[in-house]
Amino acid sequence: MFKKAIVSIRYNSLKKSNFYYRSLSYTSERYPQVQRDTKFKRLNEDDISHFNSILSKDQILHATPDNPLIIYNEDWMKKYKGQSSLVLKPKTTTQVSQILAYCNKVQLAMVPQGGNTGLVGGSVPVFDEIILSLSNMNNIRSFDELTGVLKCDAGVILQNAMDYVSDKGHVIPLDLGAKGSCQMGGVVATNAGGLRFIKYGSLHGSVLGLEVVLPNGQILNSMKSLRKDNTGYDWKQLFIGSEGTLGIVTGVSILTAPKPKANNVAFLAVDSFSNVLEVFKRAKGELNEILSAFEFMDSTAEKLTEKYLPDLPFPLESDQEGNEPSFYVLIETSGSNKEHDDNKLESFLEKVMESELIVDGTIAQDETELTNLWNWREMIPESTQMNGGVYKYDVSLPLPDLYSLVEATNERLKKFNLMSETESSKPVIAAVGFGHIGDGNLHLNIAVREYNKEVEKVLEPFIYEFVSSKNGSISAEHGLGFQKKNYIKYSKNDNEIQIMKDIKREFDPNGILNPYKCV
Amino acid sequence: MFKKAIVSIRYNSLKKSNFYYRSLSYTSERYPQVQRDTKFKRLNEDDISHFNSILSKDQILHATPDNPLIIYNEDWMKKYKGQSSLVLKPKTTTQVSQILAYCNKVQLAMVPQGGNTGLVGGSVPVFDEIILSLSNMNNIRSFDELTGVLKCDAGVILQNAMDYVSDKGHVIPLDLGAKGSCQMGGVVATNAGGLRFIKYGSLHGSVLGLEVVLPNGQILNSMKSLRKDNTGYDWKQLFIGSEGTLGIVTGVSILTAPKPKANNVAFLAVDSFSNVLEVFKRAKGELNEILSAFEFMDSTAEKLTEKYLPDLPFPLESDQEGNEPSFYVLIETSGSNKEHDDNKLESFLEKVMESELIVDGTIAQDETELTNLWNWREMIPESTQMNGGVYKYDVSLPLPDLYSLVEATNERLKKFNLMSETESSKPVIAAVGFGHIGDGNLHLNIAVREYNKEVEKVLEPFIYEFVSSKNGSISAEHGLGFQKKNYIKYSKNDNEIQIMKDIKREFDPNGILNPYKCV
Repeated sequence: MFKKAIVSIRYNSLKKSNFYYRSLSYTSERYPQVQRDTKFKRLNEDDISHFNSILSKDQILHATPDNPLIIYNEDWMKKYKGQSSLVLKPKTTTQVSQILAYCNKVQLAMVPQGGNTGLVGGSVPVFDEIILSLSNMNNIRSFDELTGVLKCDAGVILQNAMDYVSDKGHVIPLDLGAKGSCQMGGVVATNAGGLRFIKYGSLHGSVLGLEVVLPNGQILNSMKSLRKDNTGYDWKQLFIGSEGTLGIVTGVSILTAPKPKANNVAFLAVDSFSNVLEVFKRAKGELNEILSAFEFMDSTAEKLTEKYLPDLPFPLESDQEGNEPSFYVLIETSGSNKEHDDNKLESFLEKVMESELIVDGTIAQDETELTNLWNWREMIPESTQMNGGVYKYDVSLPLPDLYSLVEATNERLKKFNLMSETESSKPVIAAVGFGHIGDGNLHLNIAVREYNKEVEKVLEPFIYEFVSSKNGSISAEHGLGFQKKNYIKYSKNDNEIQIMKDIKREFDPNGILNPYKCV
Repeated sequence: MFKKAIVSIRYNSLKKSNFYYRSLSYTSERYPQVQRDTKFKRLNEDDISHFNSILSKDQILHATPDNPLIIYNEDWMKKYKGQSSLVLKPKTTTQVSQILAYCNKVQLAMVPQGGNTGLVGGSVPVFDEIILSLSNMNNIRSFDELTGVLKCDAGVILQNAMDYVSDKGHVIPLDLGAKGSCQMGGVVATNAGGLRFIKYGSLHGSVLGLEVVLPNGQILNSMKSLRKDNTGYDWKQLFIGSEGTLGIVTGVSILTAPKPKANNVAFLAVDSFSNVLEVFKRAKGELNEILSAFEFMDSTAEKLTEKYLPDLPFPLESDQEGNEPSFYVLIETSGSNKEHDDNKLESFLEKVMESELIVDGTIAQDETELTNLWNWREMIPESTQMNGGVYKYDVSLPLPDLYSLVEATNERLKKFNLMSETESSKPVIAAVGFGHIGDGNLHLNIAVREYNKEVEKVLEPFIYEFVSSKNGSISAEHGLGFQKKNYIKYSKNDNEIQIMKDIKREFDPNGILNPYKCV
């Protein structure tokens, strides 16, 4: 509710930046080692005729020289660009089923696409795959105020789902920056995590049922409202995080949570990462059931954000006095009693202040301040991207090792003489770390003046090797998509990869669904 | 912590009852329609020799005329009895792998067995399947106090895991009556739910990694500590609730929660089921983040429990005045601040009392009272079983329909003239309803003087048809096992059942793991 403003800032700023309009070469040209699979049919007039028999004219978009379907072919970060000439926009599950059955029969490859807000190139074609957009399937199917179970089409935009249940006293159990565009089906298919994971946990726990269309057109339906159902294998779990490679999610049944009656946000300055961890440990103990976010960011991230938000005064004075702390922490509490929550938070802050674990701090006094404090966390992705581009790494690491990756990356970029905040001849501006301490999830963003092969070689596989050496995950929440498909070995062992391939073959024997991605 | 006493009461009472020592006929005799699959090899001396080469002598138990391995062949409810002549008790994952690889090669069928506390006959053999007991794999592998991640062997008893993490300020995110015997691997393999599900959610959310041995001996290992890992399909989810039919869980990595600093229990009398639901709705709103259990039971269940606990005075007076309410509700709160929690609970109770939603209520004043109040909920299963036996149905239903199944079952038993509290010629004593309102999970227990085919025919498929007609689940948390294998169609559609069979075939092509069960 508080953060609608941010969403519009985010997407408007992207659209306005020159960066957004730079022309991008095709993925197939930039990654010549990836070849189009010759088993896939090339789209012809017969196929078009068949789709015309399933969908109405306004549900089929054709690429033309004037309109190469850019918003469907390109990802929003402008890193990947496909060459699809056809976008299908079914309105019903039956239409999705008919389309898939046909594609499977004739071996036409397909990319399912939700809000196209993914970060690893998973939602756009690599070659000429047909794009199946879920945007036209955007109905709320039902909501039960007693149990909080929401059932909706896959194409419902997350923000719309949030608004819908908010009016009925509930919240969707996840929140993320892309909420103004991303869709419920995409959220599920990518197992999105986001900002409130620490409170509401994984979608594997909160998704109660799915409607999924398999590549052969079969509709698998478990759209029930039951929190508990132990009648056989929980097949829907496989589709949560399958990135559109096993089936197309068309419907979601999800447990929403009662809306908190009180929200607090504190913004703290901390002078070492070990103190960030100690503050986290104490917050878990003392704030416990009301702790709904524990985010951290390093001072370099905040310096970039200050440039991005020139009209917003930085909330802590310490920054202006030159005694700059190394880290900032944003703590959010959500509970049912404002007085109790205030009391808990104030008592907690007094203790960590007395223990000299924090050097400064502020608590939002109203909703505007609360939104402003969140801005210092939520605008980091945009601020690292505003000067050309950004390499984003989204990793899980054991907490004690979490920040060491940022330090190691900075050292490496310095060693190779690639980084300078001011010298425009250097490709890299800064490497910053921020993320969800509560989930062991680090976002490492490398702000660059341009995308650059030399930088890429310095970063990869170095970062993946580092994460692997610490038993982390090379993709905490973004998924594998196209970008990380070949790096899966850094997070999964051979037996696991083989099982995934077996599962893929079982569900999609012709491999038509989102090829060249994931596994 | 509070309820250790209950566990020992529970199991001791079962062992002491005459019921426990009644002789039981073999499952294969009682269900002649189920035939031993002839593809399975019969155990011979060569097999024994091979197992001797893998395990030491004390890890192999042989049936003898004097010791038919009853505690392994029979379930604890004395409903199912297998004829296995061999129990293997490996101590390492490698041994499990070697055993399975051999059994798969020569087609020896196998039942994995944890604490053997299941309720649907899933953990005992139907014919001569070898029993693989995980009891010897009972080490805690590691615990991280910062993140709360516990890694342990599958054979660790739940209560031991609870005690271990409790000493370190954490709680296992589930709790159930069988905790003194059930094992962590079994808990995962059956996707156990239990009493704190409303607070901590499903194991699909809290299990972070598994070590599983596949039928071919391959070890699948994802024993990481990461809350987020989106690198490919989350294969471990398939094993959560697979009832030992896809692989054998040998290790569990699970996220524990910070231990609440305050616990409260209130016990309320309510005069209609619609009021129970209204109280629940208000509790969700007002107690919200501290609500850790919302249990209900009908007055018939409590009458049986009063007989079972003759030395424990019933906590509410209304029961003694003859104005008996229809339902009782147990509400538990768990939080980090006793004063805040007391305040929230008292304020909530005042409001529901003023609204005349409850007719009486009490709050536990100390740990003894708290344990005693829980007894009135936790002793229902034993109290319904003490006079001969019990038919247990564990179903999920949409909340408004939850209690109607109990009413319909009572009407039906009366109609067929099978039930009387006092007349010993009638097979049924009472049909009672209780369970986890917060999860939409009803336990319907039919207390009987003896197991009786006529009663069974009146109950089944009636109960399953009723549940199916309301879009419920015929097994909320107990699983399918042997008992409900053939009733899966009441909760899953044909496409879902086919997918399950495909998954089974993929993982266990020879079908050696826990045959005749689940799917």
